Amino acid sequence: MKLREIAGAVDARLQGDGNIEITGVASITSASEHDLIFVEDHKFLASGLECAAGAVIAGEFAAASRGKALLITDHPKLAFARAAKLLAEGKQARTERKIHQTATVHLSARLGPGVWVEERAVIAEDVQVGENSSIGAGCSIGRDVKIGRNCEFYPNVTIYPGTTLGDHVIVHAGAVLGSDGFGYVRDSRTGRYEKFPQVGRLVIEDDVEIGANSTIDRGALDETRIGRGTKIDNLVHIGHNCQLGENVVIAAQTGISGSAVIENDVVLGGQVGIADHVRLEEGVIVGAQGGVPSRKILRGKGVVFWGTPARPIQQYLKQLAAMAKLGGKR
Amino acid sequence: MKLREIAGAVDARLQGDGNIEITGVASITSASEHDLIFVEDHKFLASGLECAAGAVIAGEFAAASRGKALLITDHPKLAFARAAKLLAEGKQARTERKIHQTATVHLSARLGPGVWVEERAVIAEDVQVGENSSIGAGCSIGRDVKIGRNCEFYPNVTIYPGTTLGDHVIVHAGAVLGSDGFGYVRDSRTGRYEKFPQVGRLVIEDDVEIGANSTIDRGALDETRIGRGTKIDNLVHIGHNCQLGENVVIAAQTGISGSAVIENDVVLGGQVGIADHVRLEEGVIVGAQGGVPSRKILRGKGVVFWGTPARPIQQYLKQLAAMAKLGGKR
Amino acid sequence: MKLREIAGAVDARLQGDGNIEITGVASITSASEHDLIFVEDHKFLASGLECAAGAVIAGEFAAASRGKALLITDHPKLAFARAAKLLAEGKQARTERKIHQTATVHLSARLGPGVWVEERAVIAEDVQVGENSSIGAGCSIGRDVKIGRNCEFYPNVTIYPGTTLGDHVIVHAGAVLGSDGFGYVRDSRTGRYEKFPQVGRLVIEDDVEIGANSTIDRGALDETRIGRGTKIDNLVHIGHNCQLGENVVIAAQTGISGSAVIENDVVLGGQVGIADHVRLEEGVIVGAQGGVPSRKILRGKGVVFWGTPARPIQQYLKQLAAMAKLGGKR
Repeated sequence: MKLREIAGAVDARLQGDGNIEITGVASITSASEHDLIFVEDHKFLASGLECAAGAVIAGEFAAASRGKALLITDHPKLAFARAAKLLAEGKQARTERKIHQTATVHLSARLGPGVWVEERAVIAEDVQVGENSSIGAGCSIGRDVKIGRNCEFYPNVTIYPGTTLGDHVIVHAGAVLGSDGFGYVRDSRTGRYEKFPQVGRLVIEDDVEIGANSTIDRGALDETRIGRGTKIDNLVHIGHNCQLGENVVIAAQTGISGSAVIENDVVLGGQVGIADHVRLEEGVIVGAQGGVPSRKILRGKGVVFWGTPARPIQQYLKQLAAMAKLGGKR
Repeated sequence: MKLREIAGAVDARLQGDGNIEITGVASITSASEHDLIFVEDHKFLASGLECAAGAVIAGEFAAASRGKALLITDHPKLAFARAAKLLAEGKQARTERKIHQTATVHLSARLGPGVWVEERAVIAEDVQVGENSSIGAGCSIGRDVKIGRNCEFYPNVTIYPGTTLGDHVIVHAGAVLGSDGFGYVRDSRTGRYEKFPQVGRLVIEDDVEIGANSTIDRGALDETRIGRGTKIDNLVHIGHNCQLGENVVIAAQTGISGSAVIENDVVLGGQVGIADHVRLEEGVIVGAQGGVPSRKILRGKGVVFWGTPARPIQQYLKQLAAMAKLGGKR
Repeated sequence: MKLREIAGAVDARLQGDGNIEITGVASITSASEHDLIFVEDHKFLASGLECAAGAVIAGEFAAASRGKALLITDHPKLAFARAAKLLAEGKQARTERKIHQTATVHLSARLGPGVWVEERAVIAEDVQVGENSSIGAGCSIGRDVKIGRNCEFYPNVTIYPGTTLGDHVIVHAGAVLGSDGFGYVRDSRTGRYEKFPQVGRLVIEDDVEIGANSTIDRGALDETRIGRGTKIDNLVHIGHNCQLGENVVIAAQTGISGSAVIENDVVLGGQVGIADHVRLEEGVIVGAQGGVPSRKILRGKGVVFWGTPARPIQQYLKQLAAMAKLGGKR
């Protein structure tokens, strides 16, 4: 792709030779001549200009620089991310349907144009896959699953029957979607646990990304829902009946118990634990390893909670300081 | 199934039309006319009676109600769970063996009547699978594995060689059973870790359920054992040589280190950490994110432990209150 | 294998009948007549000598004992581990290449002599697999992956394109190597997260072992690296751009955020959380469930850190004691 085309697509001001051919993105240290890099901070500009990259995306601070073609924009990192996406799409363009001969696709399944089904993937009865979506090797897509357009499933993903996914959903290897929730009824006479029915479903909206080996349970009787644009890291667990809003960000190994409500724009650090029936209101942030007890409600856009039980960070820090004094700094 | 038959099977008192045809279970909000719902609390009775469901399981408090067929019982939720099981069994009845043509079953494997082996599953030499058990797509069942009757393995489960499973065991997608424990001997001369042999085995008793992407290691030289009726959620780790009793409940992302002993009826919340050689005596409860240090013994039926290091909840709460005072509530 | 040969190979002094045939290793309770056991502590010597084992590896303290053949060494556990390895190698010797007929191997892949590819494994274009390595059932090995000699991949492992692995690497079932890191750029205008490119790679050096269902992300633009001899337990997460040194030990369910540097000989307990850009210097130990905040540097060979935020254990214990006093012991 020519640098000029990228400039237009990411809405940046071209400065220098627009005919440079760009084939990928890279860091300052790994770049070679057809790579694009970005510099957000003035102090890295010199090394950006000296490195082997073909061109640099940078802020207005770079406008006076020479020696390399530049794309000037107010948001270099965002423009870089978009340029990377464009370049990747160019490489992966799928023009026709491709079903590997070792895949097993049920006769009743409906696959859109440009769908790829890789080696040994299994597509069960009545599955729908929208155009340009790809199903990785060894994936198991259960009966009645609906997958939107432009989705990407990496290998060995399992989707339980009846799950619905929107468009542009990315699911990394080994993730399990729509599994049974953890619910039992104890028979007080025998002391044994009997399985409570887990027959609801899982709905995943557009633009969601789910990390490797994460698990999301379907609803017990109703539904679990992951809102549009929500991003979930590796080894995350989301229990049955949870309702996640839009643009929620969840770092690795966090666990959300059944029936929690996580509103739009919430951010959860790594290894956070959210108990059952918790409500995190819009824009709440819970720091890594924080724990929110059962049925608790936390609120406040941009308010950061920390610790177990999670409390506002100022309070948490005061308590830490008091404890440090108590215990002696050494 | 007729409502009358369900009433008999779950031991509830039928009130109203026993000829209603019931095909599934649902919640008050999702029910349609052939669904059964349950109401445990008097305050939800009115909405239960008004919803679209065909019939309602409820407690004695509902006996005077009109407008819908009722199943009256002392334990509505338990009766509901049993009704759901009955209805699901009706749908899944397996009358004959079914080995998908893409599955790979070793000639020496012995499969009972009614066994299903789904797409691309691999059954190695000398495996035994009891009647009516099903092996999901992409499962890998190692040599010498013994699986009992009426077990259900969801897709992409891996079972290492030599593992033994009882009857009515459910294993969710992506779980790994019988993997090597984490044991090394450091050579002090070279500083390198050499692998300690992990050649024991894993035994899982009847009625155990194991969540998606959980991992249970086999014994190093002896065995790891999961007792009858124990329920394990998603992404749980159980180390080598652990001995778990009966009816233990373990919520998601909890980890149990090597050689721990977890007696009958213990309950572990989510993200709990149990160090090596810990003993949790019968009926102990450890709250979410609790941590039990190495070789510690906790005891007391129904006693709740909280925090790290886990201590009785009253003590934990007092300390929290004292800390809050120290740090200032804000 | 004759006991005499084992004695020579593990550098132990044979005492008694060197012609005893040994076929495996076992514990005192599980041993039968062709098994080898070990005793590290004088107090278990009597039961070791009385059990059914064919021979005992023990320390100098056992030199005066009778009744069983002995291998005397300064490091019985290490000698036992090595004997176990020898015996296992004897059983698994691979003399020729074996590609299961259900495996899918791209024409451009290069497989060394003695390579085994099990049922339904997928080997993509331009993959290299070194001699005597084995690829388990259902593994998906992406394009351009390079695997060294004598590696062992258990079933259902996924390796993303471009990952490089050294020799003698063991990867347990369900692990995911080289997946996308968790990186987004928020568009402040729309509030939506756009994916930051994750196009770097993952390098795993010799003698690394990776546990079941663990996930290691590739670098965003550069590389993630796992140093020689590092051992990683089950369900561990390692984020993009992390640099792990040699002989690092990481227990189950620990998570390491992006761009952390973990130097040689660091030991991390279970469920530890390491935030982004942390540096743990050589030989640091972090106890189970500890948390190290963003950009923190911890140093000191053999220094044990505990708690969140992780502090030296003496300080942690003092604070615990002070808190216990505050809260009242009961």
